[in-house]
Amino acid sequence: MSEKETLIIFDTTLRDGEQSPGASMTREEKLRIARQLEKMRVDVIEAGFAAASPGDFEAVKGIAQTVRESTVCSLARASEKDVRTAGEAIAPAARGRIHTFIATSPIHMEKKLRMTPDAVLEAAVAAVKLARQFTDDVEFSAEDAVRSETDFLCRIFEAVIAAGASTINVPDTVGYSLPEVWGARIRELIERVKGAERVIWSTHCHNDLGMAVANSLAAVQAGARQVECTINGLGERAGNASLEEIVMAVRTRADLFNVTTRLDISQIVPASKLVSQITGYPVQPNKAIVGANAFAHESGIHQDGVLKHRETYEIMRAEDVGWGANKLVLGKLSGRNAFRTRLEELGIAIESEAQLNQAFARFKELADKKSEIFDEDLQALMSDEEVTSINERFRFVAACFHSETGEPPRAELTLSVDGKETTCRATGAGPVDAAFQAIESVANSGAKLLLYSVNAITTGTDAQGEVTVRLSRDGKVTNGQGADTDVIVASAKAYVNALNRLYGGVPNKLNPQV
Amino acid sequence: MSEKETLIIFDTTLRDGEQSPGASMTREEKLRIARQLEKMRVDVIEAGFAAASPGDFEAVKGIAQTVRESTVCSLARASEKDVRTAGEAIAPAARGRIHTFIATSPIHMEKKLRMTPDAVLEAAVAAVKLARQFTDDVEFSAEDAVRSETDFLCRIFEAVIAAGASTINVPDTVGYSLPEVWGARIRELIERVKGAERVIWSTHCHNDLGMAVANSLAAVQAGARQVECTINGLGERAGNASLEEIVMAVRTRADLFNVTTRLDISQIVPASKLVSQITGYPVQPNKAIVGANAFAHESGIHQDGVLKHRETYEIMRAEDVGWGANKLVLGKLSGRNAFRTRLEELGIAIESEAQLNQAFARFKELADKKSEIFDEDLQALMSDEEVTSINERFRFVAACFHSETGEPPRAELTLSVDGKETTCRATGAGPVDAAFQAIESVANSGAKLLLYSVNAITTGTDAQGEVTVRLSRDGKVTNGQGADTDVIVASAKAYVNALNRLYGGVPNKLNPQV
Repeated sequence: MSEKETLIIFDTTLRDGEQSPGASMTREEKLRIARQLEKMRVDVIEAGFAAASPGDFEAVKGIAQTVRESTVCSLARASEKDVRTAGEAIAPAARGRIHTFIATSPIHMEKKLRMTPDAVLEAAVAAVKLARQFTDDVEFSAEDAVRSETDFLCRIFEAVIAAGASTINVPDTVGYSLPEVWGARIRELIERVKGAERVIWSTHCHNDLGMAVANSLAAVQAGARQVECTINGLGERAGNASLEEIVMAVRTRADLFNVTTRLDISQIVPASKLVSQITGYPVQPNKAIVGANAFAHESGIHQDGVLKHRETYEIMRAEDVGWGANKLVLGKLSGRNAFRTRLEELGIAIESEAQLNQAFARFKELADKKSEIFDEDLQALMSDEEVTSINERFRFVAACFHSETGEPPRAELTLSVDGKETTCRATGAGPVDAAFQAIESVANSGAKLLLYSVNAITTGTDAQGEVTVRLSRDGKVTNGQGADTDVIVASAKAYVNALNRLYGGVPNKLNPQV
Repeated sequence: MSEKETLIIFDTTLRDGEQSPGASMTREEKLRIARQLEKMRVDVIEAGFAAASPGDFEAVKGIAQTVRESTVCSLARASEKDVRTAGEAIAPAARGRIHTFIATSPIHMEKKLRMTPDAVLEAAVAAVKLARQFTDDVEFSAEDAVRSETDFLCRIFEAVIAAGASTINVPDTVGYSLPEVWGARIRELIERVKGAERVIWSTHCHNDLGMAVANSLAAVQAGARQVECTINGLGERAGNASLEEIVMAVRTRADLFNVTTRLDISQIVPASKLVSQITGYPVQPNKAIVGANAFAHESGIHQDGVLKHRETYEIMRAEDVGWGANKLVLGKLSGRNAFRTRLEELGIAIESEAQLNQAFARFKELADKKSEIFDEDLQALMSDEEVTSINERFRFVAACFHSETGEPPRAELTLSVDGKETTCRATGAGPVDAAFQAIESVANSGAKLLLYSVNAITTGTDAQGEVTVRLSRDGKVTNGQGADTDVIVASAKAYVNALNRLYGGVPNKLNPQV
């Protein structure tokens, strides 16, 4: 077999993944995911869309300041303001990339941009040239490439390559392509575009028909050398191509692919769990690679058979991708240093002594209730910590719940509202409902509960429950999280957290359809 | 476009899907899913593996007695006993099929079967001939076809076709194939096998690399006219090809496929929800077609664009696949007749007046706590009802929970154990833990809690929580479900249900690797 070429893994969990309804993350949460992506040796981290909001700008900049090993990228429309904002945001990066895009399909150009094809081409070239003033690493995407005319695509790609773009991305924005067709499209573009050999060809596939990974792999067979993907396949609608499936397919079927990735695959499961915890998006048990059952073999003969056929394909083992790596790390008797060290190993930054003290106190509280503290517990504890520390209006202080068969469950909560403690009471259909009603008796938000989900963070009956609450009001959707060994307390915290995000925090922002 | 050929949809949710860890279903649950599959116009329902256990036999037979529109199929190893048992089980069906299989890869023949290729071929032919004595509709699968020698595959397929098999299934048992390779394999087999034109070619793909649907579709392009798949992609490890993705890809990209299915796609989302509720396997929000976000478009331009390009592909609409069809059906004032009629519409069979009375009483109880009763609530209510009615050892009677910040939560439960009421108390890390500890103080099962999950059945703060508890003891894994507007009560019920299944109920059974 000839020497393998490198397949660049471009992770867009923090940009396209974050566009999932309610998956907005805080700057701190994004930093934690970025650190994990760096640890996993992702080549390019798309950290956000700097011009979308001041919060996005700060997040991209923070990641550019923190990450050293991966390229940090910001998305930018093909406009001067967007490109300059992206350039500023990635300025602190060891390696920074600007990813500029414009729609190239007749329908988008006419209806959305109200621009002629020539004007679109001009804007693309100007954006790429301007981007090159900030960095040598410029990517150009033709939004809605799947419905664009091939001749025009060739023209615009040739022009942006001449203007200095080094990566050309071809997205299947609506996720309706199939592998054969998609591979053929990429192959044709690479063959026809003058200067194609000077750039990296990239693909970005959506999963509306469940084809995102298969289409991406077909593009790789056709010559693409960058795949844009997300952890757990997170993303708008049915999501993006799933990073873990792309990487493991290329690796397991090395007999069929002439490419290899730099990824440290042992970080895949930790990355999957981290993203799931932070966004509140569960991973279904039968998800390939990262689902809880992905490696639950019922029959011994199968593994045995696979082992004996290593010439055909590389075996995939649960431990290779990081399953079973979570271990008992801390307990009741662990000290501050052990606690701090483990947080650092998990990529969780402690910004001050005061924050460490507060987190350590909460850790001790948890260790009193729960004999074994796992990495996942620490992640949840710190998420909860960050989440409560950013909060302004409402804060959970204490609660008392009582329910008895035949009576409506009662909740009494003490909340701090704008710094002042207040007590509220309510009954409800269940204790969670009672808690939410009690909070609403003070908050009067009128928000609608869209989603309520609980997951045990680890196994065992004393596991912490991590609750996600999704609220909507006036078209704004926010997720809140709460973790506690008491699921009702976790629920109340999650509700309070979602409320805070509804009132302050993350504004509605532009979601580009790349 | 020439007239389309029919693509046969073979659903194996009740057989391969049920092999997921802890997804064992009762006969009643299987019947409800089978009725939904029939309503959705699935062509073939693989109802189980009749020889696996008496329970499986009864389930297959029950489905064969009930379903009139779809073919009902039982799996059978290529042995006289298996084939006769399958034949008996499907005897009452309007259209019955026997699906017999044997491994054809060198490793399986040598290590598992300890048979020569000639003996394997002989067993396959004998099984098909015997099966034909029960039905004209006989399917043959070459287990582990992906690692079998092509020459031997051709020989055995030719022999079973001559013996009377009418469907030939080619499974990717380990889920490691890729579309191009898999399509080529199917094409080669169809070209080389003598008599290929007299049978339906089928494929059965697993999802270990996320390729099950893409591989199945490549097989269809190569000439396969039956796809074996499951609702939500349920199945061992990373699951099977997902029915909804197969059907919607073929339909949406009618420009690329020369086939059409008989499916009533408006039943897809109800089927997905039903299977998820019964098995306790959640559907991740970014799952294609049936995930909660699958159709959550953020941008108007996209749908607009799609609408204007109907010549390229058929638009997929949320309402087409059954989203938004759940409506407020019943409330506090609904009578017995309305209740009974809605259950019938949902395919829920009421077997006696006593059962109706009991269910109606529980419905009234629920309507007291919850203002709006949705289809999902009725499904959960009836699952819970069935689940409690099959229970022998333990039954939940009443409970009282108290938790207060600074004190360990307390639970006091009244359980009926072998018909005798007993009260138990415990404290725990949270109220759920306290409830589980209290139950264990009576049951002393020593079981390990593998999974605890809660989903709100509908939206709104007064929604019922549906809890799934997965327990394991001595290698046996069972799921329990409980639904209640009080999540702690639902948790206690789910634990009790899982315990009952652990003690009685479903035995460990043979899981074939087809």
